[in-house]
Amino acid sequence: MYELGVVYRNINRADRAAADGLAALGSATVHEAMGRVGLLKPYMRPIQTGVQVSGTAVTVLLQPGDNWMMHVAAEQIQPGDIVIATVTAECSDGYFGDLLATSFQARGARALIIEAGVRDVKTLKEMNFPVWSRYISSKGTIKATLGSVNIPIVCAGALVHPGDVIVADDDGVVCVPAAKAAATLAAAIKRESFEGEKREKLASGVLGLDMYKMREPLAAAGLKYID
Amino acid sequence: MYELGVVYRNINRADRAAADGLAALGSATVHEAMGRVGLLKPYMRPIQTGVQVSGTAVTVLLQPGDNWMMHVAAEQIQPGDIVIATVTAECSDGYFGDLLATSFQARGARALIIEAGVRDVKTLKEMNFPVWSRYISSKGTIKATLGSVNIPIVCAGALVHPGDVIVADDDGVVCVPAAKAAATLAAAIKRESFEGEKREKLASGVLGLDMYKMREPLAAAGLKYID
Amino acid sequence: MYELGVVYRNINRADRAAADGLAALGSATVHEAMGRVGLLKPYMRPIQTGVQVSGTAVTVLLQPGDNWMMHVAAEQIQPGDIVIATVTAECSDGYFGDLLATSFQARGARALIIEAGVRDVKTLKEMNFPVWSRYISSKGTIKATLGSVNIPIVCAGALVHPGDVIVADDDGVVCVPAAKAAATLAAAIKRESFEGEKREKLASGVLGLDMYKMREPLAAAGLKYID
Amino acid sequence: MYELGVVYRNINRADRAAADGLAALGSATVHEAMGRVGLLKPYMRPIQTGVQVSGTAVTVLLQPGDNWMMHVAAEQIQPGDIVIATVTAECSDGYFGDLLATSFQARGARALIIEAGVRDVKTLKEMNFPVWSRYISSKGTIKATLGSVNIPIVCAGALVHPGDVIVADDDGVVCVPAAKAAATLAAAIKRESFEGEKREKLASGVLGLDMYKMREPLAAAGLKYID
Amino acid sequence: MYELGVVYRNINRADRAAADGLAALGSATVHEAMGRVGLLKPYMRPIQTGVQVSGTAVTVLLQPGDNWMMHVAAEQIQPGDIVIATVTAECSDGYFGDLLATSFQARGARALIIEAGVRDVKTLKEMNFPVWSRYISSKGTIKATLGSVNIPIVCAGALVHPGDVIVADDDGVVCVPAAKAAATLAAAIKRESFEGEKREKLASGVLGLDMYKMREPLAAAGLKYID
Amino acid sequence: MYELGVVYRNINRADRAAADGLAALGSATVHEAMGRVGLLKPYMRPIQTGVQVSGTAVTVLLQPGDNWMMHVAAEQIQPGDIVIATVTAECSDGYFGDLLATSFQARGARALIIEAGVRDVKTLKEMNFPVWSRYISSKGTIKATLGSVNIPIVCAGALVHPGDVIVADDDGVVCVPAAKAAATLAAAIKRESFEGEKREKLASGVLGLDMYKMREPLAAAGLKYID
Repeated sequence: MYELGVVYRNINRADRAAADGLAALGSATVHEAMGRVGLLKPYMRPIQTGVQVSGTAVTVLLQPGDNWMMHVAAEQIQPGDIVIATVTAECSDGYFGDLLATSFQARGARALIIEAGVRDVKTLKEMNFPVWSRYISSKGTIKATLGSVNIPIVCAGALVHPGDVIVADDDGVVCVPAAKAAATLAAAIKRESFEGEKREKLASGVLGLDMYKMREPLAAAGLKYID
Repeated sequence: MYELGVVYRNINRADRAAADGLAALGSATVHEAMGRVGLLKPYMRPIQTGVQVSGTAVTVLLQPGDNWMMHVAAEQIQPGDIVIATVTAECSDGYFGDLLATSFQARGARALIIEAGVRDVKTLKEMNFPVWSRYISSKGTIKATLGSVNIPIVCAGALVHPGDVIVADDDGVVCVPAAKAAATLAAAIKRESFEGEKREKLASGVLGLDMYKMREPLAAAGLKYID
Repeated sequence: MYELGVVYRNINRADRAAADGLAALGSATVHEAMGRVGLLKPYMRPIQTGVQVSGTAVTVLLQPGDNWMMHVAAEQIQPGDIVIATVTAECSDGYFGDLLATSFQARGARALIIEAGVRDVKTLKEMNFPVWSRYISSKGTIKATLGSVNIPIVCAGALVHPGDVIVADDDGVVCVPAAKAAATLAAAIKRESFEGEKREKLASGVLGLDMYKMREPLAAAGLKYID
Repeated sequence: MYELGVVYRNINRADRAAADGLAALGSATVHEAMGRVGLLKPYMRPIQTGVQVSGTAVTVLLQPGDNWMMHVAAEQIQPGDIVIATVTAECSDGYFGDLLATSFQARGARALIIEAGVRDVKTLKEMNFPVWSRYISSKGTIKATLGSVNIPIVCAGALVHPGDVIVADDDGVVCVPAAKAAATLAAAIKRESFEGEKREKLASGVLGLDMYKMREPLAAAGLKYID
Repeated sequence: MYELGVVYRNINRADRAAADGLAALGSATVHEAMGRVGLLKPYMRPIQTGVQVSGTAVTVLLQPGDNWMMHVAAEQIQPGDIVIATVTAECSDGYFGDLLATSFQARGARALIIEAGVRDVKTLKEMNFPVWSRYISSKGTIKATLGSVNIPIVCAGALVHPGDVIVADDDGVVCVPAAKAAATLAAAIKRESFEGEKREKLASGVLGLDMYKMREPLAAAGLKYID
Repeated sequence: MYELGVVYRNINRADRAAADGLAALGSATVHEAMGRVGLLKPYMRPIQTGVQVSGTAVTVLLQPGDNWMMHVAAEQIQPGDIVIATVTAECSDGYFGDLLATSFQARGARALIIEAGVRDVKTLKEMNFPVWSRYISSKGTIKATLGSVNIPIVCAGALVHPGDVIVADDDGVVCVPAAKAAATLAAAIKRESFEGEKREKLASGVLGLDMYKMREPLAAAGLKYID
């Protein structure tokens, strides 16, 4: 499935305004706005807390225990990108630390999403370079086998094309296809706009049962109240 | 085993003073005071740190990928309750976010315990609504299939009846049967009362070996010291 | 494999200066300096964040659900030690809490590494007693069956001899054989000394591809760039 | 939650004919007949293949690494019973081997369901004593701490009362409350009676889409066919 | 990422001869012939043993706990197809049993690959309908929410387009893009053709070290023999 | 901890008669005879059923995704050896298939124990070459980085020295230190000799409670019978 040993230099990055705007909506709202698809599996966890970010994907395919392609990927980063990486087999090694983060940050990367391990997490947090990973591990890697950069990859169960928008926060990571970025932003903003009013009502004690008019369908489904 | 499609409106909540008093003791001491039973499995983790809470259980049985019954449960909440929910099959979806939390908080709920996923965790923490869950996931849910509210449930391996006391902190979650709440509180307070003195002794360098008089039973069991 | 029911009182602790000096280097650098070996599996996680520590190992072999030997181990602690414990079978119980921590701290222990569960984590953090564990669990343990203290143990996949140096931080835990502590410290310091310069270069935008002279070997391996 | 150190000698076993009759229906049909509840988690796997069994539950609560109560349970077995056991914490030890199986078989037990490990699996299969367990492990256990026999237990997420009917086959294990055994058998037989005809139709090429009249609801839900 | 609520009726199936021919080579050889890519994660396990199969993919996207689209998929099956299914979130439910298998078999399907659970496994084996799944579970599913048929899916970490070739055996499951089926078959046959001779040499006692001329590169890498 | 890039050619193999004799006792009895230690973790599972084997250990340390050292190990095999291998990090790749098995078998190896993946399992079973592994995976490996042969390794949590005795069957894998092989054999035979008589008694209906004289200690521990 994967093309090995290639680096695509020209990728179609999603519309910049849409890519930037999606961060504020958050992964949960964005995923709902897309019809409840596009999420990476929930084992992808942030090393930091409270960070909400979005950007355009530079994809990396790695080999087990080998981070050579991370260095190749660095050169392909443009400001506003998020690097998203996976491995051809499951691997918990620490593929990424403070030196690579320094380089990625210098190139303008906003974050790293990696279905493997990272290390130097204390320093990464001090550098304000956000990372979502599957593992944290001190284990280093070698530089011996080729993977690829900017090919479509499957990361934590989600298909990601280079240039897609990645949205990540404390709840998880979602991938928005580049072609749908603008429409998704619009839909997510619309969704969000109703939330304030709903929140106020619920805070005042109105029940979701009434606000969403659920009592009738619940009764129709056969719900019984027993005193 | 489970009765589906029912909501019990009248439940026997544990004695309020006992239910409130157990928070200060913490899950470890309470579980010891009950004879070392009643714990939920350790994969139930808090989304926040440093919170210690107790309250009376409102139980929820959910269907996979479906949070309809959470809205039904909201109406059954009384001040001092903790909502505790499980799913008929394993599911990592995000069943609960800031809107439901707003509603639960407005009704007087003190916390949510859920053997599934939650989302909006950044906001939940800002709202000071504590949650213990198995997963964190942006994934939304539908509202299509009935479960039940206030039936006995098995949550993370523990049997919980509506009205039981739930005690949760950074160490985990424990369920105290309503009928045993007062006795457990008394036993836990007694246990706790010895701790200060013990702590002082140990801090001064006295060994547990001597304080607990373990040297003789260890020798009887055959322990050998080798120089 | 394990000798049961024994406590070795005299162990060969690693050179104190080396044991103390390794903390500042961190687990990732130390593991690299040893040739990329010696790591405990990445499921060993800190209960706190930002702590970096090293010390000499007092080893403990425990039985499932039984923490008797932790009390025996306390007596063997000398200032500068780190207690490292495993169980003869997988067990998530909370073997260690604030009382044992008080005792360990009074004896001069710097940390606990345990391939099992701990509890009272809120208090442990307040006491500044750092812990790396596999689980957090309120579940208490009994005191009925002998294990051993200061025998060689396998903890989270790593062989640890009493007196070896343990280095632990947010990235994980590494074990340095006592005989290699000084050489490893020297190698790690040398490794570290190059990092500042590298970091500056990378921060200024120099690519790892050029700094590490990777372009030629990548081309030799067949990497193709596609525009 | 659990009462420790007790053995209930008189339990209400489900109706014998219903308890015996459910085996032929299988766990999947029985669970459907109960409204899709009552299943133990799918990590409970048979050590043999092709065996389908049912019987009345003798329940056992065990302590970690301790199989003392299995011997106590043996005395409570009556012909037609299935022993079902759990542990107060997760444990992979081998609690049960050929000697206990000989004893259980002599007492008339039909099978063992255990949320822990078993050993001597080759011999158990030769003896035709069926077992569903979470683990297989050579690890032995001690006899030091009391659990209980014939109290309600939570096994693999399911609440089981002594006397309930257990149905187990290659698909998994289901628990039918004693009071519902007869009704469940009737419902399961009715369900099963339609299957032969359905199978024939489907085998002849009729589509489930037509047989179950799904085309209209699918269209109503918005399904689009694209050529 | 996923398009929901659609069924593509016309898909480009891989060359029939190539699709059929790959079964004999097996998943390991086919994956090597593709350059070591295309494998589904190893948690996909056969319910039977000794079966080796290949065919063209009919893809199914399912919702958690809902197998409605399996019935929709049945109509799209042509002789020589293999149905391959995933769920929008992790789910262990039993989506597939003997009735659906009867229907699939009647339509000419050769196997099912499903990243979820199946049931009736005893009957499925008796029917000689091979299945590779992540779980086995008696738990039934509902028919309420739309997924899709014949869209590109990510199954167990691998991207699968409708019409691709699926090769499955006791070692696992591999996906060969339709466009590469013929070339992969040729490469796999070539690989295989060398194996007989190699096997004979190794059986006669020739070492791989000599047959593959590894002694020099091992020495160059620094391997030391110690007597 | 591990010495990399070395092959020890002269190892002290355990007494041949003891190494051969332990197979008949089985892993459970052998582990009991050693005082309940020496077991590999229960995730090590046989690819075949019903095989019981013992032999002297040739140890292999592998790198992630790299099986180079398996070829180096082949040359060190002597008749009666069992190859036991681990990886420096967790890896599910298929390190071993029918060609290596042919070579190992030609050298006189009796089995492979590997804390990683294997492939060609159908052929391995046909060849009667028994394997215990953590994973089964079609994924191939490269030959690029040195590990070691015949150094002490930690495999699945157990410390194994070259020359130790490995005993493996359907219940799991146990390692007996070479120096203890003869004594362990004697102890295991003695243990086994009592089993026949016990089995007969239990089969005749005598309870373990009486045969092991447990009634008194159970009462002393406080066990209560309730009618």
